[in-house]
Amino acid sequence: MSKGAARKGILVIISAASGAGKSTIIKRVMADDPNCVFAVSHTTRPPRPNEVDGKDYYFINDQDFDDMVKADAFAEWAVVHGNRYGTSFAEIERITAQENDVIFEIDFQGGRALMRRFPEAATIFLLPPSLAEVKQRLIDRGTDTDEVIARRMEQARIEIATAGEYRYLVFNDDLDEAVAEVQAILRAERLRSIRFPDKIRELVAEP
Amino acid sequence: MSKGAARKGILVIISAASGAGKSTIIKRVMADDPNCVFAVSHTTRPPRPNEVDGKDYYFINDQDFDDMVKADAFAEWAVVHGNRYGTSFAEIERITAQENDVIFEIDFQGGRALMRRFPEAATIFLLPPSLAEVKQRLIDRGTDTDEVIARRMEQARIEIATAGEYRYLVFNDDLDEAVAEVQAILRAERLRSIRFPDKIRELVAEP
Repeated sequence: MSKGAARKGILVIISAASGAGKSTIIKRVMADDPNCVFAVSHTTRPPRPNEVDGKDYYFINDQDFDDMVKADAFAEWAVVHGNRYGTSFAEIERITAQENDVIFEIDFQGGRALMRRFPEAATIFLLPPSLAEVKQRLIDRGTDTDEVIARRMEQARIEIATAGEYRYLVFNDDLDEAVAEVQAILRAERLRSIRFPDKIRELVAEP
Repeated sequence: MSKGAARKGILVIISAASGAGKSTIIKRVMADDPNCVFAVSHTTRPPRPNEVDGKDYYFINDQDFDDMVKADAFAEWAVVHGNRYGTSFAEIERITAQENDVIFEIDFQGGRALMRRFPEAATIFLLPPSLAEVKQRLIDRGTDTDEVIARRMEQARIEIATAGEYRYLVFNDDLDEAVAEVQAILRAERLRSIRFPDKIRELVAEP
């Protein structure tokens, strides 16, 4: 990539079926890549001890959250256990303006919301090699009842059915390979011609 | 990538501005990747000594070429020094059906024709770091008159102006990096969800 070209950071949306190993893969990718960062979310949940405002979350009250929703300040938001969480456009802009890429580890509903807002985002769906393997992992864990396992499997099917809405599929048969595949996707996505809106014009305009 | 998933090969269209080092980059990428192959073209040019029909080219006469054009058998074709050259859909199908990827090293006019036929192709434009560097390389070569150099520079500008029609831009500032970038693009493109039309359905349908 041309050393001199300032680039705007990209959005990377990563979703997965349960049991696809999403967190492990994302942790490995981010550890190797200082340009990949998580966006800090806004939340109405009270801070826990040790949580720092502006670092772990932006802690705001319900009224302020409502105001941001009304002002269309969120790229996506959702309710989890009665608390609201959202990612603001301002937070995304803060990161991408510094030539860093924003990683969203998000469920398919949040993924869909972001894709509508950012049609040029890099979107990746992580898949387990098979449903049988997902089930085996849940059984091996030994923490869930048969009923809970059945519900999780049903959820995995629903999640997997949405994978075709994502641009890339990464099968986690082999962790090292899956990490390398996500890294290749990021490298390729940073080279898309739409990421260099002025570069061609500058080259052609050279005296 | 899932070991069991049969995949259909993809089309990779690579164009460049003069002086971007296209042939060197493509040679290096293909040497490392046995799944990348060139399509064998049809031509009306007579075979040279040592050229083998079906390996270097499919040698055909003007009448047969006309018939293929009329039958819309070519994905692209062009006239070079009075001879016609074309790549048939059948040749592309022969390669991609074997899970190999077809590399097209082609000028922007041929690239455009192919993009219309294969909108999902991976398209890469290789760029020199600057026009000044292209000019310096031509001067250093010492084989061209000033007039020829001026004409080539004008041609390079026209070629570069089309780069935005390609999905990816690779700047050849550093050969190793440019090769690695093309390799990352190929790896990512093979993971696009449209390359796995049946895989999601199969996963969800697992008992």
